[in-house]
Amino acid sequence: MIIDKENILQFEKLYRTNFVNSLSGFKSANLIGTISKEGKTNLAVFSSVIHVGANPLLVGMLVRPASVPRHTYTNIKETGCFTINHINQEIYKQAHQTSARYDEHTSEFEACGLTPEFTSTIKAPYVRESKIKIGCRFVEEHKIQVNDTIFLVGEILEVIVPEDVLLSDGYVDIEKAETVAISSLDAYHETKRIARLSYAKPGIEPKEI
Amino acid sequence: MIIDKENILQFEKLYRTNFVNSLSGFKSANLIGTISKEGKTNLAVFSSVIHVGANPLLVGMLVRPASVPRHTYTNIKETGCFTINHINQEIYKQAHQTSARYDEHTSEFEACGLTPEFTSTIKAPYVRESKIKIGCRFVEEHKIQVNDTIFLVGEILEVIVPEDVLLSDGYVDIEKAETVAISSLDAYHETKRIARLSYAKPGIEPKEI
Repeated sequence: MIIDKENILQFEKLYRTNFVNSLSGFKSANLIGTISKEGKTNLAVFSSVIHVGANPLLVGMLVRPASVPRHTYTNIKETGCFTINHINQEIYKQAHQTSARYDEHTSEFEACGLTPEFTSTIKAPYVRESKIKIGCRFVEEHKIQVNDTIFLVGEILEVIVPEDVLLSDGYVDIEKAETVAISSLDAYHETKRIARLSYAKPGIEPKEI
Repeated sequence: MIIDKENILQFEKLYRTNFVNSLSGFKSANLIGTISKEGKTNLAVFSSVIHVGANPLLVGMLVRPASVPRHTYTNIKETGCFTINHINQEIYKQAHQTSARYDEHTSEFEACGLTPEFTSTIKAPYVRESKIKIGCRFVEEHKIQVNDTIFLVGEILEVIVPEDVLLSDGYVDIEKAETVAISSLDAYHETKRIARLSYAKPGIEPKEI
């Protein structure tokens, strides 16, 4: 069935939010770790992290400064740093719980049963229970005029990854690391790889590699 | 193990590309359909489409104007329209093949065995074989200064979705529609839902819904 914009805008609010959040497809599932000037740690679930470039090493994510994970944005601007921590099957419930509206005196780490850990490079906490972790510095931001969200770009300064998920061609087997995917607002999915396909060339059928 | 920025930048180019593209987590798998002023259809696989907002109805994606899917960007700027078509398990090989560097006289639809179809609202082709499809108009673009990519924002004008995947609370069961997820550059994954979790509140464990 075809549903047009006017129909969707008339949906009840939560129904519309569930619906529209489903449309982009499966989403990355990450916890963003930050720390305030005063040293208070913060942790928030984000489903908008995307790859931006491999040279320089860049990631991007959409931040809603006016909405729940506002400490994330403020802390990134204050310290210039953040961590990206893959949500895996062991911790998806704790990760989801970080989206509760805790008061500013509560760290989501403690409240949700996750453990902060630090390296000497990044002024932001990693999540010990996450297996694949990326330390970033803030690079630039772009305000989306039409709804006041912010597309924020970071440079990768270090990556923490278990040796046994790094394959010989550089592919990181995030499925083996039990990284999950998100759909809509609240659904968590495990994955099963169908195939890796060879580099596409005109006139040649892609092969499994 | 910890791998720092300097190490990663010294990786061989394809190894580095595979590696860095793995880091953001699972990605959405979509075919972007466009048409030129002259009426030539174009189709390109994108793994960067994300949700931007539910009121107004917004999606975003990262475009590399200097790279392969350049016709996509040019066509969107010329016509103001594009379609987003979920890649499903039936068509992931054809979808992957759209990334081959076809010459400008070849439509990826024909070359890859996919079928264009149109509605009266959107000046861009949908993919008949896709089950969940979104018609968009161009809204705004932001040039990422650090690597000359573009974050492009579109407004959703219509959604085509099978009735049997739309649940009673607005959640679209994209797993039931056999939408796939992408990891790194070339891996396609089916999914299995672990759970949907209730809205998080402080001090209350999230429940499966």
